[in-house]
Parts: sequence; structure tokens; C-alpha cells
Amino acid sequence: MNQVEQAENDTLPLRATVNKRRLMRDLNAIGRIGIGDHGAVTRLVFSIKELRSRQLLIHLMRQAGLKIRIDVIGNITGRFDGTNPKAPAVLAGSHLDTVIHGGKYDGPVGVIGALEAIRTISENQITVRSPLEVVCFVGEESSRFGFSTLGSSLLAGEVKSKDLTNAVDPKGTRLEDVLASLGISRRNLKSLKRDPKSLKAYLELHIEQGPILEAKGKRIGLVTSIAAPSRFRVVFKGQADHSGTTPMEMRKDALVASAHLIDYIEKICRKHSSMEKGRVVGTVGAMKIEPGVINAVPGRTELSVDIRSTSAQVKDRVARMVKDQARKIAQRRSIGVDILSIREENPVPLDHRLLQVTREVCDQNGIDYEIMPSGAGHDAMQMAKITPAGMIFVPSKRGISHNPLEWTDPGDIALGAQLLMETMIRVANGKR
Amino acid sequence: MNQVEQAENDTLPLRATVNKRRLMRDLNAIGRIGIGDHGAVTRLVFSIKELRSRQLLIHLMRQAGLKIRIDVIGNITGRFDGTNPKAPAVLAGSHLDTVIHGGKYDGPVGVIGALEAIRTISENQITVRSPLEVVCFVGEESSRFGFSTLGSSLLAGEVKSKDLTNAVDPKGTRLEDVLASLGISRRNLKSLKRDPKSLKAYLELHIEQGPILEAKGKRIGLVTSIAAPSRFRVVFKGQADHSGTTPMEMRKDALVASAHLIDYIEKICRKHSSMEKGRVVGTVGAMKIEPGVINAVPGRTELSVDIRSTSAQVKDRVARMVKDQARKIAQRRSIGVDILSIREENPVPLDHRLLQVTREVCDQNGIDYEIMPSGAGHDAMQMAKITPAGMIFVPSKRGISHNPLEWTDPGDIALGAQLLMETMIRVANGKR
Repeated sequence: MNQVEQAENDTLPLRATVNKRRLMRDLNAIGRIGIGDHGAVTRLVFSIKELRSRQLLIHLMRQAGLKIRIDVIGNITGRFDGTNPKAPAVLAGSHLDTVIHGGKYDGPVGVIGALEAIRTISENQITVRSPLEVVCFVGEESSRFGFSTLGSSLLAGEVKSKDLTNAVDPKGTRLEDVLASLGISRRNLKSLKRDPKSLKAYLELHIEQGPILEAKGKRIGLVTSIAAPSRFRVVFKGQADHSGTTPMEMRKDALVASAHLIDYIEKICRKHSSMEKGRVVGTVGAMKIEPGVINAVPGRTELSVDIRSTSAQVKDRVARMVKDQARKIAQRRSIGVDILSIREENPVPLDHRLLQVTREVCDQNGIDYEIMPSGAGHDAMQMAKITPAGMIFVPSKRGISHNPLEWTDPGDIALGAQLLMETMIRVANGKR
Repeated sequence: MNQVEQAENDTLPLRATVNKRRLMRDLNAIGRIGIGDHGAVTRLVFSIKELRSRQLLIHLMRQAGLKIRIDVIGNITGRFDGTNPKAPAVLAGSHLDTVIHGGKYDGPVGVIGALEAIRTISENQITVRSPLEVVCFVGEESSRFGFSTLGSSLLAGEVKSKDLTNAVDPKGTRLEDVLASLGISRRNLKSLKRDPKSLKAYLELHIEQGPILEAKGKRIGLVTSIAAPSRFRVVFKGQADHSGTTPMEMRKDALVASAHLIDYIEKICRKHSSMEKGRVVGTVGAMKIEPGVINAVPGRTELSVDIRSTSAQVKDRVARMVKDQARKIAQRRSIGVDILSIREENPVPLDHRLLQVTREVCDQNGIDYEIMPSGAGHDAMQMAKITPAGMIFVPSKRGISHNPLEWTDPGDIALGAQLLMETMIRVANGKR
């Protein structure tokens, strides 16, 4: 596997400046595709809206003179040959698909930011040895099929047959059938895998999707690792009873049991987050209540629990404590409990030498930054499996994402693209 | 208004025995109307199923030689003239409509039980001075229009124009339009009101719908009063955030706030129920969570709270404490809260002299009973407003009702009908 070594320690000032106006113009053009009420943007994977955004990107890549390649599922690369076209390429990109009623920056900032970086390099005739590629991955969001980072997972050769089994959209369309119609079956899942030898590094500019940069007054985040979730379902099985006729002491209220678990999750995650061993966050985001009517004691609840940390050890320990507590609560209240695993993922460390290059660019140019983990998943998570990967964050106003209110200051987006460009140049010109 | 005075203190043994086999045959016949999967019974108000159950009742009343009267909305009375047909009548009954996927006893036990009582009196040529009437009320359950005790409320002249405003079924049919098609408009809501002078008493045999009789090993409950609910909605307004990127200490999680309120409601109701001033029960039966997905911190929750007691004072105090606590939780967590009233009702005391008559029948015949409040609402609640009303409970297995598993031992149902019959005879022959 490639390893990015220390880039040349050049102390050049920024060689050229990205065109902020053009960058925002193109971002806004993408943002108008799939826009609806209240500015909500919806471009689900393989929808006509996602397709249109990819077509616009192809048009912009062509205008920039890039060599375009589109694989069978729609991952797009736009290549700028360096002085050594046979050298492994430096990739930068992200995705153009969105959640339902999302915003215009989650994904496009990384794609258009990379495009703007390469356009600026090209226009300013900056010498780069390795080829540079903008990459747009299909289907990073899990909103349609419950399957995230689809395009990058296929490119990294990380999709397994069993992963496809439960991937069905709300209309009943199976991801497997969509892929089959494009030529990808369970038998050739590795056919899109990119040869690691063709890659020097992968860089991704992305909005933070959290409140940390804003709270700390930083415009740039340099990402050390990507947290991974343990996701599981806790089902409390009490007894549905009439809310008027059942005395408090005779109830088996599944919702009260759930309330105690929700409280515990907050407390235990707060406690463990204050330790320096690793941040951990825990959330009950959804709950089903049965029968779920005002005049019945809830007999059954189903809680969706999501525990994340950049430390696999901390995550696993907290998840175990939450599960133990669920069992204790059920026992104490004489009700039943089932715990069903949804997903177990491992945190992904990003390349520290790549981070070092970006950090030097910041230091040399007076850019204040925060070294931080990513709480959300990204395509970089998959790319890290086949090449050194790094991520640059720009602030999200009020930490909001997956929402029409998602917003990042254009100055911050341009600064992120500028930093991405400088890093790409250094990596492309650096030793291997 | 009529008052039942002490009935004659006759010490006759039970004069005749109700026909348990016929009683259960007819109950089962009613129970087969609207039956579906797993034995679930659905006879919503004004549905073809409810209509069919009423037609069967009319048939049974005709076989028993009763004089049948049906009012415009479908309340049915079957009358057995006593030796003094002009005297005020002793009514006994309940309802035949059910919730969605309910059982076969909630309602029919009181209607068929009263029919069986009168059939037995008639067959055994037992002398009664006052007329006896079986009554079947339309639409006691609120499952279709969110409007409970419809038929008895109209008979008691207790329906007000504003009560109809929000009564709409899930298909959009307005209760007001259904009533208008039957000849009842906002202008003649009192037209079905029965003259209190025509009534001597109302008695209702009903399944307990709670676990108390079973737990105490009693076969009969004598009801002192009917609890009433304070119902309100608590809306916590926090902020939806990404579950992976938002540190615990920066969250405004509406679900954690809700969990604290749910816990408080259980604690405060347990505490107040142990006081002898009045039982109180509190339930959060339903909750909406937004956005309600596994990877988002809940930004908004809406809890349906139901607080009931047979003491208006205790109920109001506990409801006030719960609302205060909701505001405290919101303040402590720096989130917003709205409290929306749904319904405020007053507990209804039943007639203590009528209870005394039933109690004497029990005492003289060695029937063990429990003096208890009703946690659930019943037609008797409305009838109590125009005549002395009493209720007899028979045990519900495991306290279950509004469920296909609803079950009462046939021996207990027959005992309840027997007790109802004896009480009806004594009241009909008693002084006014």
C-alpha cells in the first residue's frame, strides 16, 4: 500500500488563489437540482435528480479540460495529468447525493471544492508531478437503501454479498436489482475495485456537520479519524394495560423502562466523554411505542440506539454497559428485553502523514485549525482502506446538517478549497 | 331528580337463577359479529358491524317479548312493563360497539347481562312494580371519532355543539355529518334527552378492564365512582442534531427531557396513590419523536399525558405538578416546552344508596365483593347526570381489555347478571 511520506518542506506562499465566486456559483447550481419547499434539497442515490447533478458535474469537468471517466454505477473521475501521467494519482472528492430534505453543502463542497482546486492549478499552470483527479462517488448517504458510501465502498472493493441482502428502498426496490441492471452482481462485486497502485492519496473536503468548529471559532478542522457506530435495537416487552384501570404498582410499562435507559445513555456517555481516552456519543434517535395510544399503558417499545466513538475500545465498552443496563432495568421491572444488533463498525484512523502535510500548509499560512475526529461517516472511510486518506472540515453553522438550514460561510468553503489545493500540490509533488 | 331510597330490606333468597348457557350463547353470538384474525373484534360506531350487532339484539329482545324502542341515532331500549307501567323505569345496559381489534366482553356483558336478567324475571313471573328496560347505547368507545359515550351523552342531554367540532374519523368523516344524516343537528342536540322523571335508576354490569379483582380474588366489584382524566400534551422543543458529530454537552435532546418527565410521572403517581385521599394513575401512552431516525438527536417530542383519579382535587394537583415539572426540565436543559390541554373531565360519583342495595344482595347471598372506583369511563358516567346510577364489575383476566385476549370467566359473568337481576328487582319494588 502507498504511504505518503513527508512532502517537500517548501515554504512557498500560496501560489494561486481559488476563484471563490466561481466555486460558489457552481455549488449553487448543483444546489438548485432537487430543491423543494423551504430550500430543502433531495437528490437520492440513482434518482433522476442525482443523475442531473452528475451531468452538470461532467459538463463542468469538460469545461475545465479534465479527462472524464465514468464507471458502470456512475462514479465519476475528472483527471488532470501531471508531468508524470503514469504516476499514482492524488484523488480529491466527495458525493453529490443527499438525504431527503437535506441541504446543499453536505457532499458538493468536497466535489466542487476539488474541481475548483484543480481548475486553479490548471489555469495558473502550477507544476504537479502526479496526476490529480476529482472524484464524485455515487450514493454516500444511506437514506434510500439504508446503505451508505456505496460508490466508494465498491471502488475500495469493500462490498460483500451479505451487505446487499437487506438493502431495499421504501418502495420495495432492491439495491441488488438496481446494481444488476447496471452490470454489478454478487459475482463481480470487486470488479469496480481500483488498483491501489494507481493511487497516491485521497483527500476530502467536507462540512463538519457538527458544532465544534463554530464553538471554538476555528475555520478549519483537520480530521484524525472517523468514528464508527455500534447500532442496536432494545425491545422492552412489558404489558399493555388500560391507563385508567391499572394501578401504578401493577403496571409493566415498557415506556418507563425505556425512559430509564435513555437517561442512562446520556449519563454514561457524558461521563465517558470527559475522559481523554476517546470521545463517545450515545443517542436514542427513534422509538416505536405499542399500542401507542393515550389511554393505554405502553406494552412494548423498541429503541434505536447509536453509540459512536473514535476509539473502538471505548465504543464497545459503552455499548456493553448500555446493553447490561437494559437487562438490569428489565429485570428490576419484571419485564422482558431483547437486544438486536443492527450494525457494528470499526472506527477508521486517517493517514497521519497526510494530516501533517495539511497542518504545515495551515501553519505556514497562518490558518488556525482544530485537530479533531469526525463523528459522521464519509467516503474517506472506504478510501482509507486502499490509499492514505485525509479530510478537511469547514464549519457548519449551529452544527446543522441533513437539513435545509445547513449552512457554511462561503469564505470558509473557499478557504477549505484553497487548503485542499495546496495539500494536493504538495502531495502530488512529494516523495512517495 | 330521582333518588333511590333504601330498598325494602327483604331477605328472600335468590328467587330465580339466570340461564348461564343462554347468556353465554348470546354473548358469543354478538362476539362473532366483526370478528377477525386472532379473535379480534371490531365493531366501530355506525359501522355495518355495529348495526348488525344491534339487529341481533333487537331480535333477542323480540324473542323475550320486550317492547322495543329505537331512537334516531340507534340507542335501543327493550321494555318489560311491571305491575305499574306508568312508574319510572329501572334501566340496565351498556354498549355493543368496540374499539379496533377489541374483545367480545367490553360492552356486550352489560347489554346481554341485562337482557338475561329481564328474561329470567319474565320467565319466572317475578313481580316487579316499576318497568324494567334493557338499554343499548350507540358509540360508547371513542375509537372512531375520538368521542366517547355518544349515545348515553345524547340521552342525558350532555352533548354541546363545541364537543362535535373536532370529532372526525381517520377517513375524514365528521361525526356532525353522520348525526345530521340521522336528524340530529347542533340545533336539536337535546332532542334525544330522556325525561329524568321517566327514570328510577340506571345499572350497568361491565368487565373491570383492570387487574384489581383478579389480584384480590374477588368475583364482584361494586363501583363507587368513575375516575376522570386530565389529558394534555407536552411538547419539548430542543434541537435536531447529527448523532455522530454533536458532543453530549452541546445537545438539546428533546427525548432525554421526555425521559425525565416520564420517570417523574411514574414516581409522583406512585407516591400519591399510596395516600388514602384518592388513587391516581398517570400514563404517557403515546409519543411522537422528530425527526425520529437512528442517526439524529431528537429535536422535538410530543407526549400524550393522561392523569386520572376519582378525586378531582388529587387529579388536578398531580396534573399541575407534572406540568410544573415539564417546565422545570425544559428550563434546566435550555429547551422550549409547550403544554396543550386535550381534555379536562370531572370524576363522577355513583349513587351510594344504589350501591347499598347491591351490597345487601351480596351480603345476604354470601357473595364476596370489592368496593372500588372505576378507572375507565362508562355510559353510567352520563346516565348519572339524570338518574341514580350504579355499576357492577366482573373480573378481567390479567386486567386485559381493548384486546382480543380480553376474557372473563363465564361463571363470573353469570354471577354478575344474577346480582344485576336481584338489584333491579329490589330497586323496581323499592320506594322512590
